[in-house]
Order: sequence, then C-alpha cells, then structure tokens
Amino acid sequence: MILLSDLTAVKAALRAQRIETPSWAYANSGTRFKVFPQPGVPRTPEEKIADAAKVHELTGIAPSVALHIPWDRVDDYGALTKYAHDLGIEIGAINTNVFQDEDYKLGSVTNPDPRIRRKATDHLLEAIDIMDATGSKDLKFWFSDGINYPGQDDLRSRQDRLAAALREAYDRLGDDQRILLEYKLFEPAFYATDVPDWGTSYAHCVELGPKATVCIDTGHHAPGTNIEFIVAFLLRQGKLGAFDFNSRFYADDDLMAGAADPFQLFRIMWEIVRADALDPSYGINFMLDQCHNIEAKIPAIIRSVLNVQEATAKALLVDKEALFAAQQNGDVLGANAVLMDAYNTDVRPLLAELREEAGLDPDPIAAYHRSGYQEKIVAERADGRQAGWGA
Amino acid sequence: MILLSDLTAVKAALRAQRIETPSWAYANSGTRFKVFPQPGVPRTPEEKIADAAKVHELTGIAPSVALHIPWDRVDDYGALTKYAHDLGIEIGAINTNVFQDEDYKLGSVTNPDPRIRRKATDHLLEAIDIMDATGSKDLKFWFSDGINYPGQDDLRSRQDRLAAALREAYDRLGDDQRILLEYKLFEPAFYATDVPDWGTSYAHCVELGPKATVCIDTGHHAPGTNIEFIVAFLLRQGKLGAFDFNSRFYADDDLMAGAADPFQLFRIMWEIVRADALDPSYGINFMLDQCHNIEAKIPAIIRSVLNVQEATAKALLVDKEALFAAQQNGDVLGANAVLMDAYNTDVRPLLAELREEAGLDPDPIAAYHRSGYQEKIVAERADGRQAGWGA
Amino acid sequence: MILLSDLTAVKAALRAQRIETPSWAYANSGTRFKVFPQPGVPRTPEEKIADAAKVHELTGIAPSVALHIPWDRVDDYGALTKYAHDLGIEIGAINTNVFQDEDYKLGSVTNPDPRIRRKATDHLLEAIDIMDATGSKDLKFWFSDGINYPGQDDLRSRQDRLAAALREAYDRLGDDQRILLEYKLFEPAFYATDVPDWGTSYAHCVELGPKATVCIDTGHHAPGTNIEFIVAFLLRQGKLGAFDFNSRFYADDDLMAGAADPFQLFRIMWEIVRADALDPSYGINFMLDQCHNIEAKIPAIIRSVLNVQEATAKALLVDKEALFAAQQNGDVLGANAVLMDAYNTDVRPLLAELREEAGLDPDPIAAYHRSGYQEKIVAERADGRQAGWGA
Amino acid sequence: MILLSDLTAVKAALRAQRIETPSWAYANSGTRFKVFPQPGVPRTPEEKIADAAKVHELTGIAPSVALHIPWDRVDDYGALTKYAHDLGIEIGAINTNVFQDEDYKLGSVTNPDPRIRRKATDHLLEAIDIMDATGSKDLKFWFSDGINYPGQDDLRSRQDRLAAALREAYDRLGDDQRILLEYKLFEPAFYATDVPDWGTSYAHCVELGPKATVCIDTGHHAPGTNIEFIVAFLLRQGKLGAFDFNSRFYADDDLMAGAADPFQLFRIMWEIVRADALDPSYGINFMLDQCHNIEAKIPAIIRSVLNVQEATAKALLVDKEALFAAQQNGDVLGANAVLMDAYNTDVRPLLAELREEAGLDPDPIAAYHRSGYQEKIVAERADGRQAGWGA
Repeated sequence: MILLSDLTAVKAALRAQRIETPSWAYANSGTRFKVFPQPGVPRTPEEKIADAAKVHELTGIAPSVALHIPWDRVDDYGALTKYAHDLGIEIGAINTNVFQDEDYKLGSVTNPDPRIRRKATDHLLEAIDIMDATGSKDLKFWFSDGINYPGQDDLRSRQDRLAAALREAYDRLGDDQRILLEYKLFEPAFYATDVPDWGTSYAHCVELGPKATVCIDTGHHAPGTNIEFIVAFLLRQGKLGAFDFNSRFYADDDLMAGAADPFQLFRIMWEIVRADALDPSYGINFMLDQCHNIEAKIPAIIRSVLNVQEATAKALLVDKEALFAAQQNGDVLGANAVLMDAYNTDVRPLLAELREEAGLDPDPIAAYHRSGYQEKIVAERADGRQAGWGA
Repeated sequence: MILLSDLTAVKAALRAQRIETPSWAYANSGTRFKVFPQPGVPRTPEEKIADAAKVHELTGIAPSVALHIPWDRVDDYGALTKYAHDLGIEIGAINTNVFQDEDYKLGSVTNPDPRIRRKATDHLLEAIDIMDATGSKDLKFWFSDGINYPGQDDLRSRQDRLAAALREAYDRLGDDQRILLEYKLFEPAFYATDVPDWGTSYAHCVELGPKATVCIDTGHHAPGTNIEFIVAFLLRQGKLGAFDFNSRFYADDDLMAGAADPFQLFRIMWEIVRADALDPSYGINFMLDQCHNIEAKIPAIIRSVLNVQEATAKALLVDKEALFAAQQNGDVLGANAVLMDAYNTDVRPLLAELREEAGLDPDPIAAYHRSGYQEKIVAERADGRQAGWGA
Repeated sequence: MILLSDLTAVKAALRAQRIETPSWAYANSGTRFKVFPQPGVPRTPEEKIADAAKVHELTGIAPSVALHIPWDRVDDYGALTKYAHDLGIEIGAINTNVFQDEDYKLGSVTNPDPRIRRKATDHLLEAIDIMDATGSKDLKFWFSDGINYPGQDDLRSRQDRLAAALREAYDRLGDDQRILLEYKLFEPAFYATDVPDWGTSYAHCVELGPKATVCIDTGHHAPGTNIEFIVAFLLRQGKLGAFDFNSRFYADDDLMAGAADPFQLFRIMWEIVRADALDPSYGINFMLDQCHNIEAKIPAIIRSVLNVQEATAKALLVDKEALFAAQQNGDVLGANAVLMDAYNTDVRPLLAELREEAGLDPDPIAAYHRSGYQEKIVAERADGRQAGWGA
Repeated sequence: MILLSDLTAVKAALRAQRIETPSWAYANSGTRFKVFPQPGVPRTPEEKIADAAKVHELTGIAPSVALHIPWDRVDDYGALTKYAHDLGIEIGAINTNVFQDEDYKLGSVTNPDPRIRRKATDHLLEAIDIMDATGSKDLKFWFSDGINYPGQDDLRSRQDRLAAALREAYDRLGDDQRILLEYKLFEPAFYATDVPDWGTSYAHCVELGPKATVCIDTGHHAPGTNIEFIVAFLLRQGKLGAFDFNSRFYADDDLMAGAADPFQLFRIMWEIVRADALDPSYGINFMLDQCHNIEAKIPAIIRSVLNVQEATAKALLVDKEALFAAQQNGDVLGANAVLMDAYNTDVRPLLAELREEAGLDPDPIAAYHRSGYQEKIVAERADGRQAGWGA
C-alpha cells in the first residue's frame, strides 16, 4: 500500500535521479563481423554532446555525458566543456582507451615491455589533465589487458605492473577526483583478463585508497553471477563508485539497459534504494555503457534511460516496512511477495505524471520522433566521417 | 598395452587423416575492439592458398583449404583451383557470407524483407556455381541471422524463411555436393539466433534430405555443453558432416584448436575413432575455423593441426577391448582409467617417427621457423592491402 | 491499445487455460545437503490430491494433478481416480521413476546390464497400465541416465538402448495416449546425460512417431539457452507436448515458476499465444514441476499457478497487428516496444476481475490463508510418515 | 629440456608434497535424487580414519585427514587423534556444519533469528575446542547460508551478521590456528549465497586479520571462471590458505580431482609452483573435497591424489627460464609451447620411480586392489549404520 505521502517522497527521489550517457553510444558500433553505419551519426565530439543534450532535454534526468579518449580528443577541452554547458549538460566521466594502439596488442599497463607500460600509463595521466580541463571528477579505467593462451604471460607479474600503473594515476588525482575501476570477465582477452571480476577491482581499490572505487558493468560477469549481491556488498564496503548499465543474454552483448532482464535491473536498483544510495550526493555515477548496432541510437538511449528510471520507480515503491517485517519473521513467500508487488506495478503513469509536472513531454520517445531532430541530423551530418569505435 | 600390430594400424590411420585449413585464418582478424595487423599477411586468395600449401607441406595432413566468398572471390575459379593443385592442395569447402552486406543488418535468408532474402539466397546459389568451378563438394552455411531484442522479429516466421532458402539451395546441389549447416549459440545476434544449436541444424537437415548434414563448430555451444555427446549422437543418426575446430574458454573465442581444453578435443576424437569415422572415406570434413588475433598465423595453424593430430593419436591408442569390457562390467573407475591411460600417453615421439617415415621434418613448427618462409612473405607482401575479415 | 472486444477474447482465453500441478510438489523435498520437513505435508497420494484440489478450488485453472510412480503407487487406481473426481480434479500425466532403485546406479533403460534394462522398461510399461486405469493420456519420461566420467560407458550404445526401450513403450501406447520425453542438461549425471537437450528428445520423438512429443522443463537448459526459441521451433515442428514449469537462476533450482525471470516466462507464453497453442484443445500439457524446499508448499504452488497465469495474460495483451507491422518494417525498437508494452502492463486487476466473474476470490493466496486449510492439515497430518522424494 | 639436476629438485618437491583427504569422501554420498550405498563404507570416524590411513600408506603423500563436525563427532577427540597417529596420519582441518539442523532452514550465522545465529556461532566455537583437542590448525567454514527468492531476506544485513560471527570465531582462535573461509556460487541456496565468490571471502578475511584466509574449492565457481587467476591473485595478496580439490563439468559436481579438466588442474598447480607455494612450510592446505556417488570410494580417492600429484609433477617440469624469456619477448606461441611441453609429458614413469625409491608400490591403485583391504572392510563393516552426509 503506497500512501500519498510516500508518493511525494518517491517523486522527489525520481526528480533527483541522474543518469549519465556515453558519447560513444551515439556513434557507430558493431561486432567483429560487421559495423552497420547509420545515417545521422555524429562526426565530432560536439555532435555527440548535442545528441546527449537532446536526450537530457527529453528525459530530464541525463544531464551529463561521458567522454572516451582518444575518440573524443579535442584541442580545447575548455571550449568543449563550455559547448556542453551551453546545451545544458556537463562533461561526466573521462574514459581512457589503452586498447586500440598497435602497441597494446599484448597489453597496455600490464604489457611485459616497460616502454609500452610507460606509454599506457602516460595516457592515464593525460586523462587526468583532461579532467582538470573539463571539471570531470571521474576517471574510468577499463583495461582490456589479458592473455589469450595459458603461459602467454605471467599472471602475477601482470598484477604487479597493473598495481604500479594504478598507483601512479592515483597519486596524480586531484582532491575531488577519483578512479572508477571497471572489471570484465573476458573479451578481448580470451584466456585470462587482468581485472576479470569485482574482487580484483575491489582489492586494488582498497590498496589504492579512498579515491579508488569499483565500477560495475552489468554485462561483464560470468553466467549466473548475482549482480545485486555485488551491489549490496560494495555498498556495505563503501567501494561502489559507478555503474555501466547495459544488458545482455549471453556475454558482453551491450544491449539497452533493462532490455534483457528488467527484473534484474529492478533488483539492482532496489539495493541502491535500500541503501539510500540513489541521490547524487551519495556519489554513485549511474552511467550507461552500451552500443546500438542495429537500432536507432538516440531513441535507444532514451529507452535505456527510461528503463533505468522505471526500475528505480518500482524500487522506490517497495514497501520497506512490510518487507523487513516479513524478512524478520522468516516469511519467505510474504517477503518475496512484497518485492514482487512493487515490481509488478505499472509505473509508467506515475512517470508520465512526473514528466508533465516538470514541463516535459510524458512520452520522451514519441516526443523525439515528433521533434524533427532525427531528420535534422540525417540531413546535416550527411558528409564527413562518422564517429565510431575505431576498431 | 599397445601391441606392435596395433601401432601399425594406428600409424595407418594417422597417415590417412585429413584436416582442412581455412583461408581466412591466414588473414588479419581481431575483435570488435581492434584488429592488430601482422606483417606478411596474404593480400589475395592466391597468397592464402600458398600459406595453406606451406602448412600442408610441413604437416602432411592438411591437403585442402576452405574458401570464404566474397572474401576469396576471384574472376577465374578454374585458374585458382589449378593454382592450388600446382601447390599440392585442393579447394575444400565453400563458405558463404551473408552477414557483411549493408542489406543484412536485420538478417539475410530470414530477413523480413523478401528482396533481401532473394539476394541472400542468390548468394547461396552463386556459391554452388563456385563449387562447380572448383570441384568443391562441401557448401558450408553459417547464418549470423538472428535478432537482438525480444519482439524484434517473429521467431517462427524466420524459420519458415530459413527453410525456404535452404530448400532452394539444396535443390540446386549436384550429385556429389552437400550442405554443411553450422549452428552457433549467439554473436552477432544477441537475443535469438536462427540456427542456435545442433538440434535446429539437425531438424532442418533431416527435412532437407541426405545431402544436408550438420557442421559442429567446437566454439559455438552454451557453457557446459557436452560436445562429444553431440558427435556421438550425430554419428548415430548419420548426420555429422563436418567439424569447425577451434577452442574457447568463454564464448566463440576462436582460439587454436586444442589450446583451451585438450582433453575435450581428445574425447571428441575418441568418438570419431570409436565410430570408425576418421578415414576420409567416411565423409566427415575435419576443418579448422579459428582466428589468430595476436599470435603468428601460420605457426598457429600448424600448431592447431598438430593438436588435432595428437588428440587423434591418443584416441587411436585407446584399448577398445579393455574399455568395452570395463564398461560392460560397470567398472566406473576401470573404464575411465582405460581412457585416461591413452590420454596421458605422450604421443609426440610416435608422431615425430610417423613424420620422419613420411619424409617430413619431425617438428613442423621448428621446420617452419627454419624455412625462411615467414621472412619471405614479410618481404614480399609489404605493399598492398592485407586480407582480413572485412568487418 | 486494447479494445473492449479484445479484452473479451483475452478473458475467454484465460478462462480456458489449464495448468497441471505435480503431486510431488506438495510433499517434502530438499537438496542433497538437507530436506527440511514441513508440518502438514501429505502422507498419501490421496492427501496430495486433496492439496491439488484445494489449489484448483482457489485458482480455477488447475484441474488436474500429475502422479509420480512409485511415489504415488496405490493398490486401486480406479478408486484413486474416483477420489480425485470427487474433489473436482483429474489425474494428469503419469511420471515414471527409474532412478531410485539400487539397480539404477549406472542407469536404467541405458544400463549396460540387460537385466536392469528389462526391469526399467517393465516399469515404463507398468506406467501405461496405470494410465489405462486412471484415464491419463500423458506418459512422462525423465531419464536420469547418464555417466559421471569420460569412458564410464559408451555414449552411442546407450542411445541404442534408449531407443529400444522407448520403442517398446511407444508400441504399448493406447490410441489416445502419448509419450512426453523430457530432457535435462545434467544432474544427477555429471559428465554426460543420455537425453541432455531438446535436440536429442526431438530426434527420438521423430523416430518414434506422432504419439511421442517433447516436454520442455524450463530449468533444464545450459546457461544462456533461449527457451522461447525452442518453444517456437517445436511448435513449428508439431512436437511440443508439454511444459514442466519452474524457474532457476543457476542450474535445476526448481524454484517457483516465474520467480527467477518473469520476463522469460512471458516470452515463452507469448510464443504459445502467437501460435494459438494455449487452448487445451491444442494438446499441450502445461505442468508445474518444482519443489518447495523452504517455502510453504500450497501457497508456493498457488503463486506459481498465478505467475503462469499473469504471464499468459500479458502475452494475450500483445498487440499482434502492431507487432507484426513493426517487425515487417524492420522497426527494431518499435517492435520491441509493442512487446514490452504488454509485459509492463499490470494484469493483476484484470485477473482479479476474471476470478470474481467466475465466483472465485480475487486473491487466491489471501483466500488460502483465510481458509483454515493449512491449520487443518497441520493438525490432521501430525502423525505418520510424510511423503517425500524418497532419496 | 629437463636436466638431471632439475629432476632431483623435482623429485624433492614431489616428496615434500602433502594432500589432505576428507573423512566424508569415504562415506556414502549422493544427489538429491538418490544415495546409492556401497558395501564396506565406514560406520564410524575411526573407520574413516582407517581408510584415510590406507590411502596414505599407498600413496605416501596423504598424511592427514579432515574431519566434519558433527558427522565425525566423538566423545574423546584425544583418543581419536591418538588412533590416527597410531595409523600414521594426522587430524587435519576441522570442518563445521551449520546446514543440517532444522533450525538452519533459513540460514545459520546469517539467519534473521538471533537465537539461531547464536546457536550456529556456538558451533563454530565448539569446532575450535575440537581443534585444541586434536591439534588441528585449520578451521574451515563453508556456509550454505543464502536465500532462494529475491526479497526473502536482506542481502546486506546478512553480511553484517556474517561478519559478526566470523569475528567472534576469529577472536577465539589460538596462536597457530586459522580460519579457511570457503565460498560457493550456489547450492543449496538458489538465488543469493552469502559467501558466493572469492571476492566476498577475501574481503571478510582482510577485515578479520592475518589468521583468516581464503579456501578455493575448484568446483564452486560460475561457468568460465579462470580459477588459476584467483590462485595467482590470492598468492600475491598472501591470502590463499587452502584448496578443496574436486572437478566438475557443470556445477558443484564433486567429481574426482583432475577428472573433468586435467589441464586446468595443471594450470592451477603451475601457479603454485611458480610462487614456490607447494612446500608444506608455505602454509597452503591442499585438500580434496569430493564425493564418490557411483564409483568405489577408496580407489577414487587414490586416483584423485594421484591426479593432483601428476599435475604437480608436470608443473614442476615447466622450464621456467624458457617460459619467462618467451613471455618477456612477447612470443605468444613460444611461451604457450613451453607450458604445453610440460603438460604433454607423461610423468607416470617418473612418479612410479619416485614411489619405488620411497619403498612404495609404483601403482597405488593396483596395490590397493591386491591388498585385500576392500574385501576386508566389506566383510567387517557388513552390519551397523554406514556413515553418510546425513541429509
């Protein structure tokens, strides 16, 4: 039973929610088999930012955009930041890329060659310069480093090298900057990845210090992994810094967040709500990290933002008192029923109302299609080289 | 206990063994994150064939090369075939490619658009023309067709479309030509793939008729799948046409055959040996299908050929009488021990001897490194565009 | 947009829906580590039937109960059937059990020992006698047969033995009786199971004839398997005979249907609805097969029945015309949105209304708790030996 | 190339190797479907110890036996210890059991009920008393605690409860006693397990202090998990305390160590050897933890001990200098080849020689069968209640 007073709190929480979209999701992407280009795709960091601003304009809860270096490298980051501000959004996390240079074939910061490690670590430091220039507070590391064959390199030495690079970057951080250390089970490394799971990321972050936190990418786990357990555990340890939301049925499919298992996304958001960790003041960066290989990109990102929002709304509707009482009583079915009651609620009317109260269109997808933006970018961006993953 | 008379039979079986290498494994490949080019990589179908011929020259058991259309498209297939013959090898399976044209974004033979289905089916028929021109007897179909999101397309209608295209190709086959229908759990489709498992391939092959058989790609299964069971089952049903060998720890990693789980490869080859299905006269095409993203390509293929050969040698050493007796007696540990005894045998001396008897170098990898071939191709192939997957 | 006329059809379909509950789910069950007994658990087949009747009384859509032999062995099956009829329910599928006799340690119908195979096959035939006596039309086979170690027994010979036993049972079937052949990836066999996947079951069923069909147990697949694809495929082939519904996060967890992944259950039911296969006249037996190790049993079964019903209601609400149009247009996001719109609908008010129209309590769980039945069975069944899996 | 001087070191390392066998592996075990009893199975802790002593007598490297409380509860642990010493073996790790009492249905140390938590924690403390009495230094905790349904209990509160119980036990440890904290992905809990992965165990151990270390059970991971990475990582962190060896194809199959993936076992032992962590002085307890449901128990344990020994011998044969040189040079195939060269070596002659030098039979399995021990225990243990898992 949701009281009116509760609904007020639910709406307030939803109004405060922030989801960061990734610049690269607006660009072309694909699989190793084929990248299918789409008309209207951005050609520059500015055009990606413009698309991100459009998503924020329509959803009201996506006021920042993550950058990926060197994909989003520009000469003047101050100007880029101002450009974003003028469009109503902030520069979010700075993502490093140490996997696409020829030198990184056998690894970046864990490469057996010290010259290449130096080069990779310098790139990490460069990203902090960009943070200084853009005002970004989050430095996200995803290391594709790993090996394809048993024996190819020494697992333990690679950890030593990784720790050294992380330490150097950590020591360079400003007072209000932090590291988000992502992990991934596999791909592109196919035998051993140097940061394969949350435990590895966590152990490094603990050793680094309070400014290092774990980033959970929802698509980066072994089959069967209970992601909301990791969320709850890291919240308890004070080490959950960020999410990379996306969804998957198999491996790192990078489908739209909430598309493959909306119940899982709800369970994740429930752990956030249960820990009072939704508010931006708590410090978690809720990012999307996905790619739209065959579907229209901007609508796909709007859809993903809405999916996270819907899961959050359902989580906020959980009757906490009833839940905790049933849990304490050992009422297995009763406790489960309280959670499911919230999940089974159709929150779309509530969210439409929330948007209307905020002066937004109740249906952001429909509003996008009516806006003429897609036709405009298709026309304007017909020439030139579309941005992409650059593989 | 292996008697001398048995060893004679083992050697004879090993001498008759044939493994087909894939033209694309000599070319550049990579992941969606990066393709790392290598010096000396072929630029043309002819150069791929030359590399395949080198592998056969050194191993003695790789006398054919599979082609991939359009990657290996040439004007004159008769000339290409003659070129191969002059180098001592045959043109093997013709692989179709209906996943890299812009039109195939939402599918090829299962696309909702009949124009695109027609185009894709025509490509299948074109491949049969190429078979006629090259003398190839095997037409391999791998359809990347599938969908990324629930509801994106109708699962059942796609099967109807698939069946229609398969039928059309089947009816075009010559008397001694056949279809090898590959399956794959996922990638590049991330929600549902139209031929995801052996059961789907098998059911279509049964409906098509005797000239359609299943191709098992060892990397294309769900985690935990017992591949040798599928081998044994399809042998019993008379529907096992071919293997695509490679190995994996996670998904379709496409590592060298035998690199990830040599015991599994042995168990697979044991089912082949147990069914007397190793000899070329039985009709199974034992192909490699893998990519060498970070390791040297030709040595990696030699290594893979040797790995299959070693697994085969071990399988041939299984003491069948002792095994069947222990099985019949319900002696769990005894039966397992007979199998493991063969697996634990170091067959490398036997294979070195076999090669020497055939006038080959006992160590094909070392022989390759001594041959100067790598230096030669690096020098000769410095200019021009390297062949690759073309993604 | 759901029109009133559509709602009438939806309600009619829901009224016709039938879900079969399993006698053993009312009894004690557990894991290999511990069976936790519960008060009030049935001691006899009659008491299980009484519980099943209670579930039907409250839900209105569970009018039959599956039996498991020998767990439900009685002297007089005619009397048992009459007892069920008097309580308003039918005897459903007869489940054979060839895994708990000491003789079956190394297999039942696939055992290397012909005496044990004979014994197991005779049990299959006995089950058909029970079908004759009870009027049951469905004979369900789940064979735990398999091996734990490579080499333990011969994979292919076991298929021959399996085929022989199936043939003998098939030939004994009456005109309106059929075989439902279940498959399972693993457990209790840990290396190879003799019927591990739908393909194996399908191939045997095709060879047996039209009275043999596949039973899909939703918990019996490898990680990542797309179950709704199998549903769609088997419907197309005319070989889907039944479901064993339950849910799982990991392996064969046997949790309540719909508890682990309600979206998956919806997608499965959508394939049923899309093929017009929901009505009992189509011939699919929608059964539950699960165990309730820690939760109250009867409420857990009611919850599972409701979960299937809710997923069905959502599937019936899919706007087919809009979906097929979007699919045909290649509108990836639009087609997905149509499906998700139905899934996101809260169908509980509709189902409450449906129940009230049928003279049922709108909330079957609450009605059960109010009914006094639980207190009654706890009191009445205090003595004697509770029924269980008998491991 | 292995020099004679190296072989001396290899043999010395192998002579020092110690593997601990588990008392419960000698007893009856099974799956939830059936426990198949075997003749000759022990009825008492003493008889289990006698079997363990037999295994040590034949293999020479299994001089300790782990106990499981309450399965191995006796009145006089001093007498039990003396009994073991008289048979030539030590009491190894003490395993707690907080999963089989009725009270533990919803958890033991994480149960929402403080009374039950108290009871469970008291059992942990009791186990330390037993350690004091037996001289055991290792206290192994496996908590089956977890939940089956989302919402059933609060994930985070359960961590708080777990931490409190661990702390209490930790503070009770003597100076040379330590905790081994095992983890397991799932089973018997089917939604969330309270210690599901190495990261959770590691984080708790770090917080507890230096006397808490992680125990790796090789069968307790999600599919695809790279176990040797965890080994290498925990060795680097100084937190690897023990192994529970067994093998699996699917879930926690508990097959004989090395039976399912001998290459994996070799890679694990290579990380041990590479870190000089094999010697007992390093402090890792190499235990078996498996069950023998269908195979003869004592021979199965001997086989498992030998499998670990063979994997170790291969790991010791790795040419470290050549490996590190190839790794440093980025020679992917060369480095892999060095590792594979050791793996492909047949070490059975070396181990037979080692045994003969130690006065043992070169073939422990054959020696067991010749020994008459099996016939003796079958005759002597015909009456009474066989020991089992007690589920």
